[in-house]
Amino acid sequence: MLTAGQISKELKGELIGNSDQIIDSVSKIDMGQKNSISFLSNPKYEHHLKSTEASVILVSKTQILPELNFKTFIKVDDPYTSFCIILGKYFNPQTHPQGISTQASIGENTNTDETMYIGEYSSFGKNVKLGKNIKIYPNVFIGNNCQIGENTILYAGVKVYENCKIGNNCIIHCGTVIGSDGFGFARQNDGVYIKIPQIGNVEIEDNVEIGANATIDKATMGSTIIRQGVKLDNMVHIAHNVEIGKNTVIAAQTGISGSVKIDEGCVVGGQVGFVGHIYIAKGTQIGAQSGISKSITEENTKWIGSPAIHLKDAFKSQVIFKKLPEMDKKLNELEKKFREK
Amino acid sequence: MLTAGQISKELKGELIGNSDQIIDSVSKIDMGQKNSISFLSNPKYEHHLKSTEASVILVSKTQILPELNFKTFIKVDDPYTSFCIILGKYFNPQTHPQGISTQASIGENTNTDETMYIGEYSSFGKNVKLGKNIKIYPNVFIGNNCQIGENTILYAGVKVYENCKIGNNCIIHCGTVIGSDGFGFARQNDGVYIKIPQIGNVEIEDNVEIGANATIDKATMGSTIIRQGVKLDNMVHIAHNVEIGKNTVIAAQTGISGSVKIDEGCVVGGQVGFVGHIYIAKGTQIGAQSGISKSITEENTKWIGSPAIHLKDAFKSQVIFKKLPEMDKKLNELEKKFREK
Amino acid sequence: MLTAGQISKELKGELIGNSDQIIDSVSKIDMGQKNSISFLSNPKYEHHLKSTEASVILVSKTQILPELNFKTFIKVDDPYTSFCIILGKYFNPQTHPQGISTQASIGENTNTDETMYIGEYSSFGKNVKLGKNIKIYPNVFIGNNCQIGENTILYAGVKVYENCKIGNNCIIHCGTVIGSDGFGFARQNDGVYIKIPQIGNVEIEDNVEIGANATIDKATMGSTIIRQGVKLDNMVHIAHNVEIGKNTVIAAQTGISGSVKIDEGCVVGGQVGFVGHIYIAKGTQIGAQSGISKSITEENTKWIGSPAIHLKDAFKSQVIFKKLPEMDKKLNELEKKFREK
Repeated sequence: MLTAGQISKELKGELIGNSDQIIDSVSKIDMGQKNSISFLSNPKYEHHLKSTEASVILVSKTQILPELNFKTFIKVDDPYTSFCIILGKYFNPQTHPQGISTQASIGENTNTDETMYIGEYSSFGKNVKLGKNIKIYPNVFIGNNCQIGENTILYAGVKVYENCKIGNNCIIHCGTVIGSDGFGFARQNDGVYIKIPQIGNVEIEDNVEIGANATIDKATMGSTIIRQGVKLDNMVHIAHNVEIGKNTVIAAQTGISGSVKIDEGCVVGGQVGFVGHIYIAKGTQIGAQSGISKSITEENTKWIGSPAIHLKDAFKSQVIFKKLPEMDKKLNELEKKFREK
Repeated sequence: MLTAGQISKELKGELIGNSDQIIDSVSKIDMGQKNSISFLSNPKYEHHLKSTEASVILVSKTQILPELNFKTFIKVDDPYTSFCIILGKYFNPQTHPQGISTQASIGENTNTDETMYIGEYSSFGKNVKLGKNIKIYPNVFIGNNCQIGENTILYAGVKVYENCKIGNNCIIHCGTVIGSDGFGFARQNDGVYIKIPQIGNVEIEDNVEIGANATIDKATMGSTIIRQGVKLDNMVHIAHNVEIGKNTVIAAQTGISGSVKIDEGCVVGGQVGFVGHIYIAKGTQIGAQSGISKSITEENTKWIGSPAIHLKDAFKSQVIFKKLPEMDKKLNELEKKFREK
Repeated sequence: MLTAGQISKELKGELIGNSDQIIDSVSKIDMGQKNSISFLSNPKYEHHLKSTEASVILVSKTQILPELNFKTFIKVDDPYTSFCIILGKYFNPQTHPQGISTQASIGENTNTDETMYIGEYSSFGKNVKLGKNIKIYPNVFIGNNCQIGENTILYAGVKVYENCKIGNNCIIHCGTVIGSDGFGFARQNDGVYIKIPQIGNVEIEDNVEIGANATIDKATMGSTIIRQGVKLDNMVHIAHNVEIGKNTVIAAQTGISGSVKIDEGCVVGGQVGFVGHIYIAKGTQIGAQSGISKSITEENTKWIGSPAIHLKDAFKSQVIFKKLPEMDKKLNELEKKFREK
């Protein structure tokens, strides 16, 4: 049985309350249950500190605590991360199936071994290199000459075109497509578009997670590159020859046009769009629904809007946008008075 | 053979014209054919009333009719709904295949019976509970411990992660993913993100329809909930721990961030985005491409823009946005004149 | 072995340099390699003309060339198109698998022959008509009564609902859904929505390419139509009864509401939205993230913004949007001074 004292020790936290408090489950603070451990990270939820039914709550070191002798608090540096660690270690029920289905299709010169899971109705082309402990769910398609690293999980219905590489410890969710042709056509004088052959590939480094129904196009020539530690949400679209830098995270439904290079450690909101052939500097933060129409060369700046401007400027302009009719009226009156004078 | 009189009686309508007019097909008013029944609902199409080739037209009770003795009109409360009823009852050719394919994979302790259709290359995990008359098209994946209610249709390539529940009479279109991991990561000091285990599920109540290639993430803890009667269009993204209220409809490509609660009877346009952790009151209507950045607590209000403002204010500001250069010029001239005076 | 002279002759170009220069690969100008052929089309890349390692570069007839005796240039009308031709003819490694998998499911009265490729775990309904040389990758689903033309490629996991038609020489990428139900519901007085049966289909003409994870809904009645030569990028959403005109191209994540008609030769950016029931004239160009809320009847015009306005006006207004706070301040000061006077 887990106790608060044990968890506090493991997290190197400071315990306030009952170190013998039993922990048998996890809960969100607004839906806390007796004997569960919860956490407070988002200040929006602070009012739940008093009312939650959770018995143990992870809080930040600077958190002012209510005086409640029947609750136990553990102060840590980062309550969210600490909670994740406990959740992953003691309460994560996910297990993967095992073994290689007889109803999967394995091409010539493609390796399999007993450490892998390969589900029903998945098919692999020729010369595919598979790492140890990979988990391939049903209905996955992997083209010729692909490489997939150790411990990587491809959920049901993932499709990977030929010649692509996926690193170790990656997770790719259902329905995501890796290596589709880039959107490249040359317009002829009669208005007809001819296809530009797309002969490159996609390379995904280690520790990348990609959500469901995302698409990553292969490069026209060379590689579309997703660097290590990148996290892409559902339905993100990455065009040909894009490079996404290390540890950059991109929220759902964002689209990135061809040959964009986004540097390390950027944070991109949902439904953002990028025009092609631009560069985004390290540590850039971009608000949801922004349109990025030119390169951002200064590091660690924040942007929002379409076309995007600096976050602070945008907030000011947005406030005034609402009173445009009022401004317009004021201006016209002033003009009239001035003329009358 | 159907006649106008028979249809009028069935709809409790008022017939103007020939009650013996034969009806052998349905048509859109702008593409009407002889002996077909059509309807007028959108006023944009009113000019077709005179010119349409359709022989019978469903119109609203207040519709002013052209004097055309060779056409038959049926006045009803709601022409669109009445047309749907006739279309569904007499002219809907869709039938589903039957039987359980020998090329499907059914896990331990998962029930099947002769009322079901299960297509080729679909696979079911262990302990899946399936309701009577379900229709599962080819290449569907259902994880362990899922429940799917009676009469529900899953089209080809739908994927459902383990532990999810889908109610009765639901329709889920091709390629939609239910129960993928929420996009939750905790940033470490070195910029690396660690994954927050997602241990919840998705619960979809009765009479829900979801379009093609949509994604609904499982909750971090607890459930992402889609209430009864909700209709979601193609490529809608629903993040972890969201709740969508009864009879809310959401158009294509809209994205809803984590822990948002949308109440009953809302209407959300296409390509809308919602930031996380907000509440949207009953009956809210949100225009296409809006960005909803804070809670909407008053019921039955209308919003548009990014960030969204009240619909009427937005229209006024948008009009003035176009004349901003003119305003700017006017302001500068006025300032100059004032200074010269 | 290919030489520069041979290529120049084939392209009817003008060669400047060494006509015996060997060409053994292709490269992008910024990643040029010895003995490779490259091209310059986008002026952004002009500075690479001097520094590229590529041995042969296709340039426009008006290009001013650096004096470099170790490089060979070929002047042509359209370097990009010329490059595509060479790339496709000599350097495109893509070959498709062949033969009909024994692990595919072919319905009654559906034809197959030895010119086709049909991959594992794909299934075809009854009465499907397949053209010669089609390539159907694994996990594809084709419903009853569909028609698919000669030389058409459906990549893995494409799903086509019953009664749809796809022309000759089409390419449809992984995960795309053709023929899902239109989003049509009639709201009842109690807030419940009833489904409008969708009894139409989708018709795709010849030479159409559609990206990955796109969705094209069937018509309520009649057909949703994609005319010849249309190119749709990843995750484009086309609603019921839409018609897309010949040679129109639409970038990723754009959504088109029901019954919109887009005419020939239009160019639509990414993440654009269209309201329903409007018409877009020939040759219209629409910038990324625009919202098109009414018909565009004048041909060959350019639009941007949400709601969209003429491109030039939009750029002017966007510039001023940034200085709204300044304008507001100026206006208030002016008003104050005026009052004080």
